[in-house]
Formats: sequence, structure tokens, C-alpha cells
Amino acid sequence: MTEPYILLAERLFEQLRARSHDGVGITRDTYGPGEQAGHAIMEECARHLGLEVRKDAALNLYLTLPGRQRDLPAVVTGSHLDSVPRGGNFDGAAGVVAGIAVLAGWVRAGMTPERDVVVMGIRAEESAWFPVSYVGSKAAFGLLDAAALQSPRADTRRSLSDHMRDCGGQPELVAAGVPTLRAAAVDCFIELHIEQGPVLIDGGQALGVVSGICGSHRYRDARVRGRYAHSGATPRGHRADAVVALAALIDRLQDAWAELEADGHELTLTFGQVYTDPKQADFSKVPGLVSFTVDIRSRDTDTLRLMDERLHETANAIADAQGVSFDWGPVSGSQPALMDAALRQALHDAAAAAQASVRDMPSGAGHDSATFANQGVPTAMLFVRNANGSHNPDEAMAMTDFAAGTRTLGRVLAERAGLRGPD
Amino acid sequence: MTEPYILLAERLFEQLRARSHDGVGITRDTYGPGEQAGHAIMEECARHLGLEVRKDAALNLYLTLPGRQRDLPAVVTGSHLDSVPRGGNFDGAAGVVAGIAVLAGWVRAGMTPERDVVVMGIRAEESAWFPVSYVGSKAAFGLLDAAALQSPRADTRRSLSDHMRDCGGQPELVAAGVPTLRAAAVDCFIELHIEQGPVLIDGGQALGVVSGICGSHRYRDARVRGRYAHSGATPRGHRADAVVALAALIDRLQDAWAELEADGHELTLTFGQVYTDPKQADFSKVPGLVSFTVDIRSRDTDTLRLMDERLHETANAIADAQGVSFDWGPVSGSQPALMDAALRQALHDAAAAAQASVRDMPSGAGHDSATFANQGVPTAMLFVRNANGSHNPDEAMAMTDFAAGTRTLGRVLAERAGLRGPD
Repeated sequence: MTEPYILLAERLFEQLRARSHDGVGITRDTYGPGEQAGHAIMEECARHLGLEVRKDAALNLYLTLPGRQRDLPAVVTGSHLDSVPRGGNFDGAAGVVAGIAVLAGWVRAGMTPERDVVVMGIRAEESAWFPVSYVGSKAAFGLLDAAALQSPRADTRRSLSDHMRDCGGQPELVAAGVPTLRAAAVDCFIELHIEQGPVLIDGGQALGVVSGICGSHRYRDARVRGRYAHSGATPRGHRADAVVALAALIDRLQDAWAELEADGHELTLTFGQVYTDPKQADFSKVPGLVSFTVDIRSRDTDTLRLMDERLHETANAIADAQGVSFDWGPVSGSQPALMDAALRQALHDAAAAAQASVRDMPSGAGHDSATFANQGVPTAMLFVRNANGSHNPDEAMAMTDFAAGTRTLGRVLAERAGLRGPD
Repeated sequence: MTEPYILLAERLFEQLRARSHDGVGITRDTYGPGEQAGHAIMEECARHLGLEVRKDAALNLYLTLPGRQRDLPAVVTGSHLDSVPRGGNFDGAAGVVAGIAVLAGWVRAGMTPERDVVVMGIRAEESAWFPVSYVGSKAAFGLLDAAALQSPRADTRRSLSDHMRDCGGQPELVAAGVPTLRAAAVDCFIELHIEQGPVLIDGGQALGVVSGICGSHRYRDARVRGRYAHSGATPRGHRADAVVALAALIDRLQDAWAELEADGHELTLTFGQVYTDPKQADFSKVPGLVSFTVDIRSRDTDTLRLMDERLHETANAIADAQGVSFDWGPVSGSQPALMDAALRQALHDAAAAAQASVRDMPSGAGHDSATFANQGVPTAMLFVRNANGSHNPDEAMAMTDFAAGTRTLGRVLAERAGLRGPD
């Protein structure tokens, strides 16, 4: 083993921050200038280290330290390089930087793995931009639905295909389903990522080994329609108030969520965006329309289905009682994924060897690891303690925790890839 | 008595519609081109009829048929000529058109009142534009708060003062509180207005005599602050979800409203606008902020106070339980007003004489009549049946109902003003 290059990692984080700070937080827009800058920084560093650099049709980045036996299935690590708007610097990027830091240490020490070891800079993981989960990792496996390439980016309204082409990609090859990765050619995938919730902070552990990744069931453009009316002149019994109906739905579903948890289900339920019509609504009108989003997440597909059933049952009862109607719009989401037991154990052992405190935990957030796992690749994730959540400018990972995570990752990658010292 | 000029009224409505249709509904913006057009149409018609035309510093329009004894207190009728954005053609304008139609009939028949009879085209009644109630009628009495003149218009963000000056008004005189109307110089004020709720349609009456006008208590810029967090990674107990908190507030206050009604209180409660932050909110974030409006209305100041107390009690309990905070922003609103008993009886008698069906009813909406009543002027309102509510393009008043209302109004104005035929 050789010590990972933490100073190199700090420099990479600094470069990322300098090139993607938006005045408030970090914006590395998917297939836009922010994500491009992230990829350029990693590519330049990899060339400096002498790693092989490749890109696929979707512009995922593959930084490879060649192994002695190049036809063996490769050991792959990495994460995504995009961010939500006004997000933080570590979400995603930490996994790419950790992989590069590990390889930098090996290169400096003149060590060579038996198998290729690949650090991936994955594209387009944050679905804040395009309403599609795991764009980059799906494209790498030739799994991205051709229709998904026509999805509009939330801010520009231009298609994923257009944005990909602007950056130099080949969306027609992606649409044709040409794979760059095949499960049989991947020995394993291990993704380091900051934790996005408060579990490690609250529990006092530096690291978390992920047991499974939540899938999701989402309505990103749902509406309640009622009837606009004068707020002073319309008595209670004559109203079809869209906001009152939605409030009843949200309030009752908090109870449904608690009941499902009491029955042993693990899930989250979030109404992240709610808004009356900016043109029609007025403080002096009974609101006739309100738009909203629903995000249900669970590691268990049955739990996703049960919560979705409760959502619709409750909404139907409210619609009948209050004279409003619900329009759910398109459904989107992702499948849950289980992590590989042997890799999980290896991460625990490596954390112990690195004298880092560690616990098992589920991942409520989705990650590209889910794509690898669902393709049958032995997959694992290592969470690093982080304060203040993610998807905001205040995320806070201590570099000592990052170093512990990188050491733990490096140890498992070394074992798995058959790392050897200079002959 | 002479028959009012309904054909003239229809032509005025047609001119108003032609000059203020916005493609969807009617927009007569307060102190903007739409309201200006409405005033120009009425002024031109009045000059054609030979009425005296005056304007005050706030540009309220006074169309006067001179009486034989010009120093007696005048009989005043009229209403406002502005509309909400994408509103209807009759809300406000019907009261001005009815007054002109009555005077047109008298002029044609060569009849003269003992007292001056004045039709007012009142400015700026719709508080969709400026966050101030009864701008025009308050200004006429020298009551408009100087600070109110600095309020920004909702769309342009330019001040009431600037908009008034653009139209030719003298905001500095308005700010100085120089009155044009004094209560002692007004014998009575009677306002005809379409009904804005479903009471007359449901009850099958053509006309409504208003018993009292609701006052209001409003928060037009309230907020709930929670904490943004990742929707998948943040467990239920770790959330401070602004939308969940607001949903609980809205839902519980529906019960509070029903309880107050069961105790004999009459009121309405409306959350007309609700919106998460367009920049920060995302379907995959626990929402950390939601903005909303509250509009409480009642004819009884005690009822307004009781509902406001329930609002704050409930919000405080939710804030404590859920770890969010409420920021209420400025309060606005208006005082309730009682209508004059003798005028109410006169309207009932006149409706009976005109063979129009009529009922008593409160006004949930605010009207300039409240300003007159609260200045001690004997005041009454006559509602005309109207389908589909108001403040929308679908309001629908039958011209036969309008004619019945105009006849009823004309008869009371004639009695009160001492109308006499040609000598």
C-alpha cells in the first residue's frame, strides 16, 4: 500500500471550486460549461500522471492505469462530475478525485496492478437538469432509452441530445445502444461519495458502507385543478380550492408515511415544489390550480408501490370530497439496487485497517452504482461523513474523513486489482 | 319615473370590452391604459349628455346632473372602472354605466332633481395592482395614507404616485390629504355592483340588497422557513419541511373555520398563492422555504380577530413541533362597514315596484361603499345576479337583470334627489 495523494486531491477540489462557483454555490451543469470544466480538470490531471484517457459517445471519461493482464475484467471506481444548481463541491466529484488520488499514489510508487484499474468521470447523474436517472452510466452500458435523449434541460429547454452534441458527444451512437462497458468486462465497481444525510454525523462515524440504494417513484409535473373564485364572495361549501386539496393530501400522507414506517418499511416522501399559477393566482382568489412534485424513495420496490397506492387512494378521496381533480403527469423513477456482500465486507475490513470508524447504512439517494449493480456487476459504495446535507452550498466534508475514505477505497481497489510493487 | 337607457348601457359595455380585452379576459389596469380607457369612455358619454364633468387630484371622475338647489348635499352613485388582470367586463363598470343610464333617461325626459346627482367613476378599487384597499374613494375623502402612494404596482413595480402622475393626477395633493368629498356634503351613496359569488344564482333572485361589507385581515407576503435537505437521504425525523408545515397549517385551519362558523361567525379564509422558491426548490430536495398569502374576511371585526388568533396559535404549534419558523410580513386589510337601514328598505321597495326578485345578503368582497359608510355617509349597495363569479373572464350578467337593477337604482336616486318633471 501507498499513501494516497491528499495534497493532489485538495488541489483538484480547489480547481473544481474555482471553475464552477456561481456566486452562491457550485453549479456544474450537466452537458454544459460547469460539467465540461470538471471533466477537463480530471483529464488534464490524468494525462499528467500518465494514465490512459478515453471518452465514450456520451462523453463519460475513463482514466485507466493499465494492468499486467489487460484482457482481465477491469476494476472500476469513480462517480459523477455534475452538480445540482447552487450545490456543493464534493457531491460526485469526491469519488473521482479519490480514485485519481489512489492511482497517483500507485504511479508515484511505481506499483502496477494485475488488472486494469479505471477511474470513471460519469456524466449527467443529477436529474435536476434532465428528468432522467443515471444518464451517463446507462449510456455507458448502452441502456439509455432513445426517447430520453429528447428530454429538455430544465433551464434551457434544449434536448439532452443537443446538449450532448454541443459538448462533442455522439447522441446517435448513444441512441443506437452501442455499449462501452459490458458487465462481463467489469470485475467490480466501487463508488466513494459524500453522505447526503445526517446519519454519519449523528452516529459519529467517519465512513458508511452502503447496504442498498433506494429506487424512486416520481411525479415531476402533477397538478390539482379546482375552480377560481372570489375569496370574499365564495362561501366555504361553494369552493373547489386546489391549495386546500393539496394541503389535505400532503398532511394525510405524513400519517401514511409514519404508518408504513411503523410496519417496518423504509422510505422517504417529499413534495419538493409546490406553486400556484403565477399568472392566474391572486391573494384575493380561491386558487383554481396548483402544481406540485412527488418523490417517493425506498430500497424496496414493494414499499414504493404501497406508498404510491396510498398517494392515489388519498388523492381520490379528496377529489371526491372537495370537487377537485388530480392530474399526475408522467411518472419517472429508478429501480432499487443491492450492494455486493463480499465488497461490503472488504470495505469494512479496509476501514478497520485504516483505523476509520464505519457503519452499514442504506443510501436514500440514487447513485450510478445502481446501474452497475442492476447490470450484475459486483458493486459497492463508501460514504464519507459530511455535514449540512448535500445539494446545497453548505455541504462540509473534513479532509481527514476524505483521506480515511480514500485510504479505505485504495486498499480494496489494490486487493481486487492485484496491485504489486516494482519488480 | 322614466325608463333607463338600456341600449346606451349596452353600447358603453361594448366600448369598454373593445378597449380593454387582453386576448383572454378584460384588463383595466389601475392608473394604466386600461383604467384610463374606461374613464375616457364615461367622460365622453357624459359630455354628450350635457353632464358636468370634474376630476379630483386622484383622477376620480364626477359626472353631475345639477340640481335646482346646488348647495344641498348631493346624491352620489357609481363604482370603480378598473379590473383585475384577465377579469370580466362588468365588475365595477356596471355601477358607473347604471348611473349614467339613469341620468340619460332623466335628461331625455327633461326632468331635474332638487339636489345634484353625481355618478362617480372611482379609481383603483382592485387591490390586485397596488396592495392598498379603496385607493380612489379614500383619496376622494382625503384619507389616503401618504405611505400608500409609495406602494409598488404588482406588475411594473413602479409606485402608485408615479402611475397617478403619469395619468395626469396630482399625488402631492392626495398625499397632503386635501378632500374633494366631505361626508356632510353627501346625502347618500348607492353603489350597484355585480354579485361576485353564487348566492343570487343559487337562490334564484335577480337582485341583492347588501346588509354589510366585509372587512379583511391579510398577509400578502408570508413565509415558512425550514431547511433544505436531500429528499432521499434525509429521514422523516431529521426534516424541517416548509411545505409539510404549511400543509398542516392550511389543513388545520379549515377545521378552525368550520368551528367558527358553527359558533355563528361569518367569514372566509383563503390561501390564494403558495409557492416554493423557483431558484432553490427542486423535486429532489426537502423544501426549505415556501411563500404564501392569507386573506381573512368578515363583516365582524371580532371574527377577523378570532380567526387571526387561530392562525397564529396553529402556526406557533406547528413551528414548535416541526422546527420551522413563520415570517408573516406586513399586515394589510380594511374595516367592515354596515349599510344604511333606510336606504336598504328603499331599495327593497323599489325592487318590488320594478317587479324584480330581491334578497338581503352580506358582501364578502370589499367595495368603495365601505369608505363612504365608514365616513358616516348613509350608504347602500345593490347586487345584480351574475354567474361564474367575478375576477375571471367568464362572469355573466344578463342584461334583463342589469335593467331591473338599474330601474331599482334609478327609482331610489329619484326619490332621494327629489326628481321632478319639466315645469
